[in-house]
Order: sequence, then structure tokens, then C-alpha cells
Amino acid sequence: MAAAAAPPPPPSAAPITLPDSNPSGQPLFTRIRLATAEDVPHIHKLIHQMAVFERLTDLFHATPADLSATLFPPNPPPPFTSFTVFLLELSSIPFLATANPHFPPLLNSVLLDLPIDDPERESFRSRANDVNIIGNDVIVGGFVLFFPNYSTFLAKPGFYIEDIFVRECYRRKGLGKMLLTAVAAQAAKMGYGRVEWVVLDWNVNAITFYEQMGAQILPEWRICRLSGEVLQAYAHVNL
Amino acid sequence: MAAAAAPPPPPSAAPITLPDSNPSGQPLFTRIRLATAEDVPHIHKLIHQMAVFERLTDLFHATPADLSATLFPPNPPPPFTSFTVFLLELSSIPFLATANPHFPPLLNSVLLDLPIDDPERESFRSRANDVNIIGNDVIVGGFVLFFPNYSTFLAKPGFYIEDIFVRECYRRKGLGKMLLTAVAAQAAKMGYGRVEWVVLDWNVNAITFYEQMGAQILPEWRICRLSGEVLQAYAHVNL
Repeated sequence: MAAAAAPPPPPSAAPITLPDSNPSGQPLFTRIRLATAEDVPHIHKLIHQMAVFERLTDLFHATPADLSATLFPPNPPPPFTSFTVFLLELSSIPFLATANPHFPPLLNSVLLDLPIDDPERESFRSRANDVNIIGNDVIVGGFVLFFPNYSTFLAKPGFYIEDIFVRECYRRKGLGKMLLTAVAAQAAKMGYGRVEWVVLDWNVNAITFYEQMGAQILPEWRICRLSGEVLQAYAHVNL
Repeated sequence: MAAAAAPPPPPSAAPITLPDSNPSGQPLFTRIRLATAEDVPHIHKLIHQMAVFERLTDLFHATPADLSATLFPPNPPPPFTSFTVFLLELSSIPFLATANPHFPPLLNSVLLDLPIDDPERESFRSRANDVNIIGNDVIVGGFVLFFPNYSTFLAKPGFYIEDIFVRECYRRKGLGKMLLTAVAAQAAKMGYGRVEWVVLDWNVNAITFYEQMGAQILPEWRICRLSGEVLQAYAHVNL
């Protein structure tokens, strides 16, 4: 469980601006698409970076093989009915529009004041099937993992966001906002009642960001958790 | 979202004791089974009672029709892969063992010191298919609603308990413990990593109960929520 996020970003919903029309900045083109099993190595690294950010590496036990088996099973359920990952990809050249019956990738861009120095560029090159079309300039910048939840008070499904994460060198550019907006828009289009997630109470930047996105922060609720050996012992309870 | 619970109950895992072997008490026989669409009227009333208990009736908007459509769709997914309801039934005479390919009902009993005066007995008569077999003495006493969640740190699914509720006159008898144990046991048997839920910080009885069940209470996390018109507005965001 975790929800890190970029600090409050400026809005980035402006239409794509070509480089020569704005000599003071350069565009970073963005794509949000459904992740696939090929993306697991990147997803694994992103989750680990999030654990480091949250100071929770002692709780990090995921392996790429386990992620692959649980997030991308051989007979996957319909999209959005179970665990779902949106991947954020970045490129200095525009993405081509591609079709996807379940979720057409969301294309956008942000304007950069300064070029970004990405020290992990090589290890985060996208594994998307279509990178050969647009050159190998596509870099994975973040992800959001979510799944359905349910409100009995509304009698409606919703989405629960387990993780939202943008790599450090790409923060403060509106990219976390794009990822959260993508999930909220999908929920709204499906007629869902709520999108929920949790935040660490010391993560003031994230809380401010979420409030700017329109979220309520609920102060009264506390998470309860059964896990590890305590949970396993319940397998042998004689009911 | 809600999680009310019975206050700390005594353990009730003792084998069934026949009435004449314990003249000081009388047994209340219990059954936990998967709910069906026929149970929706009872589930609706239970959720409303929980909203009253939690002082959150302003957030209660569920109708029986909405519950039926979302919890028991025409082509339901496999059990435990989506929203799942366990119903707690009570009877003064033993339940017959019945088969269920997905979840054999859990039969147990508790010993009562005093007879229970259930003022809503008539409106909570069970709608189970087999009540004719055991007479119409079966009363719905509570429920638990849960669904899969996912831990990226464990790379494993778990269960999230949205609601756990025992009707007031049946509290303090170990019945909430039975419901929570049923979910934890199911998670453990499926190899899941965690069972999680939330509790209101003023509900000291419930917190004590959960701690006695082995749960950790996580003090640092806060729930964030997008809902209502704020969420719906995201349907029109141009991404």
C-alpha cells in the first residue's frame, strides 16, 4: 500500500505547442497507456523507487515474476475489473495515435523550461510494441496501479488507487496530475461513485496536490491490517 | 466505506455443546454463507443500520435495486474475484450441512447466558433456499462485504473488507469475530498477503477488538477521496 505523488504541479492541459512557437521551452510529449506483461521490469523498478521514497523498503518483497503472475495472468479478466496499471511514457518527439479497444492511449505534452537530465534513461527505455515506429526515444516516467472497490453507501463500484508514482527527475511538471486525472476520468466515464487512495500524513506536498485535485482528506479513518504469520495462522482456524 | 464491529467478544471456537449438557446456557447456532441476490433486502437494511451506527446516514444513498445490480450481476465473476458478501445467519436449532462448490457454509454455535430479545426478528427472517428444511427459524444477524485488493510491495492480492456488521442485539457474543475470521481464513487459504479495512478513530471498542484479532492499526495513513460532482467533472477533462 502506498501513494506517493509529485508535489503540486502547474496545470498542463494546454494544447500541444510546437517547439518553434515557444522558443523559451521545449515540449515533453506524454502518453498514458495500459501496461502489459512486457512492462513488468519497469513496473518493478518503479515500485521499488516508491518504497524508497516512502521509507518503507522493509515492506518491499515484490519480484518481477510475482508481479507478472498476479498483474498479468494467462486469462486476464476484462480491463478495469481487476488490478490495472497505467504506464506514463515520455518522449521528445510526438507519439503516434494508436488504437486499443479497451483504452485508447492518452496523448498530451508539457512544456519544459529546462532540459531534463534523466540519470536512469537507459534502464527505463519503454518496451512498448510500437517504439520502433517512433524511434527508441520513449522513456517510462511513472505509473498508477488501481482496481475496483465498492461503496455500500452508494451501492456503486469505484476505483482504489494503490500506487501513483512519477520518477524524481520528472516531478513538478504536472505528470502526477495527468496520471490521477486519467484514473478519475475513467471512473467518471464508467459511472463509478468514488476514487480513493491513501497518503502518509507527513507527505504534505502530496496532500496539498491531492486537495488541489479536488480530493477530500478524511481525518478520522485508520487502516487496520492482518498480514504475515498472523494472517497465515487463520488458515488453520477451525470454523 | 465503513467498518463497524462488535466490541471485544469472548472466543467462541468451542465445539457445539448440546443444551442439556449445559443447563446454564442455550446454544445459538450460526451459519456463515455466501449471500445471493435473494438476500439483498436484508443486506440493504443491514447497511442502513451500519450507517446509523457510524453517524454517517448523510452518505447513505444505496437502494436495494442498485445493490442487486452491482453485487449480483447477471453474469457474475468467479467467487472472491470481485465484490463478495458473507451473510451471518442464526438459529435456535442446528443448521444442516449443505454443499456449495465455492464456499461450503461455516457452521458453529455460541452459548447464550440469556435469551436474546430480537425486536426485528420478523423483518430479518432469512431468505435462504433451505429454510424450509430447518423450519423458518433462521434469522439474519450480520454480514461482511469484501473484495480483492493488491499490494505492490508483496506482489500479492489480498482482501479489503468494506463493511463488517452485527446487529445490535447480537453483539458481544463472538459473532463479529466469526465474520472477520471467515474472511481472514479465506484469504490465508488462497495464499493472499493481507486483509485490510478501516475503522473510525473514535470507535475504541472496535479498535480493541481488531487488535485482539491480531490486526495492526496503521496510524500514519489518511484516506483521500474524489466523489460526487468533483469526480463527475473529470469525465469531461480533455486528456
